[in-house]
Amino acid sequence: MALPSKKNAILVDGVVLNGPTTDIRAGEKFVEEACRLIMEEVVLKATDVNEKVCEWQSPEQLKQLLDLEMRDTGEPHDRLLQLCRDVIRFSVKTNHPRFFNQLYAGLDYYSLVGRFMTEALNPSVYTYEVSPVFLLVEEAVVKKMIEFIGWQEGDGIFNPGGSVSNMYAMNLARYKYCPDIKEKGLSGLPRLILFTSAECHYSMKKSASFLGIGTENVCFVETDGRGKMIPEELEKQVLQARKEGAAPFLVCATSGTTVLGSFDPLEEIADVCDRHGLWLHVDDLLKKCYSAEASYLFQQDKFYDVSYDTGDKSIQCSRRPDAFKFWMTWKALGTLGLEERVNRALALSRYLVDEIKKRDGFKLLMEPEYANICFWYIPPSLREMEEGPEFWEKVNLVAPAIKERMMKKGSLMLGYQPHRGKVNFFRQVVINPQVSREDMDFLLDEIDLLGRDM
Amino acid sequence: MALPSKKNAILVDGVVLNGPTTDIRAGEKFVEEACRLIMEEVVLKATDVNEKVCEWQSPEQLKQLLDLEMRDTGEPHDRLLQLCRDVIRFSVKTNHPRFFNQLYAGLDYYSLVGRFMTEALNPSVYTYEVSPVFLLVEEAVVKKMIEFIGWQEGDGIFNPGGSVSNMYAMNLARYKYCPDIKEKGLSGLPRLILFTSAECHYSMKKSASFLGIGTENVCFVETDGRGKMIPEELEKQVLQARKEGAAPFLVCATSGTTVLGSFDPLEEIADVCDRHGLWLHVDDLLKKCYSAEASYLFQQDKFYDVSYDTGDKSIQCSRRPDAFKFWMTWKALGTLGLEERVNRALALSRYLVDEIKKRDGFKLLMEPEYANICFWYIPPSLREMEEGPEFWEKVNLVAPAIKERMMKKGSLMLGYQPHRGKVNFFRQVVINPQVSREDMDFLLDEIDLLGRDM
Repeated sequence: MALPSKKNAILVDGVVLNGPTTDIRAGEKFVEEACRLIMEEVVLKATDVNEKVCEWQSPEQLKQLLDLEMRDTGEPHDRLLQLCRDVIRFSVKTNHPRFFNQLYAGLDYYSLVGRFMTEALNPSVYTYEVSPVFLLVEEAVVKKMIEFIGWQEGDGIFNPGGSVSNMYAMNLARYKYCPDIKEKGLSGLPRLILFTSAECHYSMKKSASFLGIGTENVCFVETDGRGKMIPEELEKQVLQARKEGAAPFLVCATSGTTVLGSFDPLEEIADVCDRHGLWLHVDDLLKKCYSAEASYLFQQDKFYDVSYDTGDKSIQCSRRPDAFKFWMTWKALGTLGLEERVNRALALSRYLVDEIKKRDGFKLLMEPEYANICFWYIPPSLREMEEGPEFWEKVNLVAPAIKERMMKKGSLMLGYQPHRGKVNFFRQVVINPQVSREDMDFLLDEIDLLGRDM
Repeated sequence: MALPSKKNAILVDGVVLNGPTTDIRAGEKFVEEACRLIMEEVVLKATDVNEKVCEWQSPEQLKQLLDLEMRDTGEPHDRLLQLCRDVIRFSVKTNHPRFFNQLYAGLDYYSLVGRFMTEALNPSVYTYEVSPVFLLVEEAVVKKMIEFIGWQEGDGIFNPGGSVSNMYAMNLARYKYCPDIKEKGLSGLPRLILFTSAECHYSMKKSASFLGIGTENVCFVETDGRGKMIPEELEKQVLQARKEGAAPFLVCATSGTTVLGSFDPLEEIADVCDRHGLWLHVDDLLKKCYSAEASYLFQQDKFYDVSYDTGDKSIQCSRRPDAFKFWMTWKALGTLGLEERVNRALALSRYLVDEIKKRDGFKLLMEPEYANICFWYIPPSLREMEEGPEFWEKVNLVAPAIKERMMKKGSLMLGYQPHRGKVNFFRQVVINPQVSREDMDFLLDEIDLLGRDM
């Protein structure tokens, strides 16, 4: 390390204070080399189907393979680069064309650059003075999205995911129902109750617990055979809750449920909400609901328009500028390019559905209306069996066993789950824009290959 | 774009399904060029004091200078690179050695590489199967930190910031007080009340509002002249709250307040908590408090140890592996290297305090006990004035005026605020490990240069 000579050093309590403590050139070189490694081992390999999706190791094995320990003295750069190589090697390649495990997948070059920019610039989006560009970008993206919905006005922020957004929605509805709750809290109030579909995201219960509403006050409305909330059931439950002295305040409808990809009938639900004065979750944002007016951050005597200091809108204050990566992609593809991506994902979903219907041993859970395709694989040994309890008991074991095999082989990653009385089934959601018909064929071929001896 | 020929194309609803839709080589080249740009314009310039900290533009001007609009058709790569250049140019250089505006600063090469890795691999930390490496890294870091504190056992997760951590703390204390609140909610319960110092972070009020406790039920305990909670005042207020029929459940003590950097007397506060059966905030985490048991994510029939599926511990489910960048830095510097950084920051703080005392026109708010140094600049025109109401009224205008000048010059960024009866003062917090004595001298020189004619 290039430390200043002790001769001219200024010492306070034995610590040298002049000059930098780190070797800047070596640090820069390390970043350059790591970037090259990331480029070669992650970005360039992301689209290569000959690479493994994952190199499965159990937690115990992986702990042996990785050098996780943090020691008293630091490690040299070449050792750190080797650690980076190991981290990449044993990480799941969520960018791989055959990673279908989650509701995210694929490598978007423009978003990735947006994220690299963000990490290098290290901003936090709460005041205009520290994040001028990123605040304007977020404003532009939110404005464009509001126009798209067709609203005349609106506001919003980018949140760290859907769970947090659902918490906001619930909190806003509560504020709308009774603004005093912000100051007074819920104690002494009647039991607030909200309604959502039995197919809703599990964050609804987390949110109700966190917000002090209570998980028992999340009322799950029965759905039809296609996973859509039944408006008549909703109305019945609202009336029942009122009769019991509870205070209905919110209906959380879902457009595209997590497992089945179902869409609740919004028009009919909105009618029920109108009749009973309930807030329908629309993800709008009211600043005064969160505002805590921190004087050290949101000085009103600043020399510019302080309406751009948006930190008081969010629960976390410091935020990554997540709108920026979306803006980069939108800029690069244009609205038409984004539309093309959606169209292709939906067309690929329809192709996969047709293939599932055509092929022996594949059974659709239901006709999908969106990009979620839920299906069972029935191995040859079970194909002649009657579809009774014993059959389903056996089918239930198929998806976990195939999943274990695919993870150990590393050829594919696809999620499975049981769901409301249906035994374990696979769920494919087409998201990755780099995915093609060939990947859909591979998906079904590979499941058959892995499971045909079961 | 290299699209497959229409001849062999498989069409569904007019959409071509075979082959990729994007030109992969062009995308990769774009990422490479953007990385070079980021390296040159952000990383290499981050340590150069001759660069501006910011190039100030008002929101209106900046909107003119940036091409924010998202159009129907995409933009070519050279245009996107120019946009990236503009974004960098007009962003605040939070990595600059003279960025002192916030509680983060500086460029850590190892954290940055950790963040680049994270963004490229795009994991989400909730199940072992999608995030094997990052879950083990988080476990290792949390374990090491618990050892450091000296605990025998414990658990934890990395949160998106202090505000969210405070919300967790409050929720955990509430769960400890009455586990039923998770299911039943707060309605019908006595008024829950919590105690924190008058100097606490503003997220306390946000948290109380969000959690349904109510901002009026955050009881601010008076502090002494150095910003520390007075334990006798705390006890008095607890007794008073009980008398009024409220239910005290939590004391949130602060070690290093946001503005003054004060430390509450933990031992004495713990004694008060013991006497009255109150939870003292220690940032521990109880999994069962959040658990919602989402069957589609946390299948219990997986083929590996599902205790590594930690998604149910957090409120947001999908999380960035924030422990990873800290792990990278710890690996690179070692425990001793981290210790050296802390020692140097504190020594630099003491140096700055001594300089403030030595120099004309600088006035310390109070003797700091940590790395927060709060001070006023008194321009020559006010130095002979009596320290009465008129004096302070005039001093109050000095920091905002100097701030405007430094932003427009771009030489420095330093925060100011009024605080509990004290008029606007500057707050310097030494964080950046690249900062040296020369930067401390520059800070005071520059403030004097910018403000001496006021």
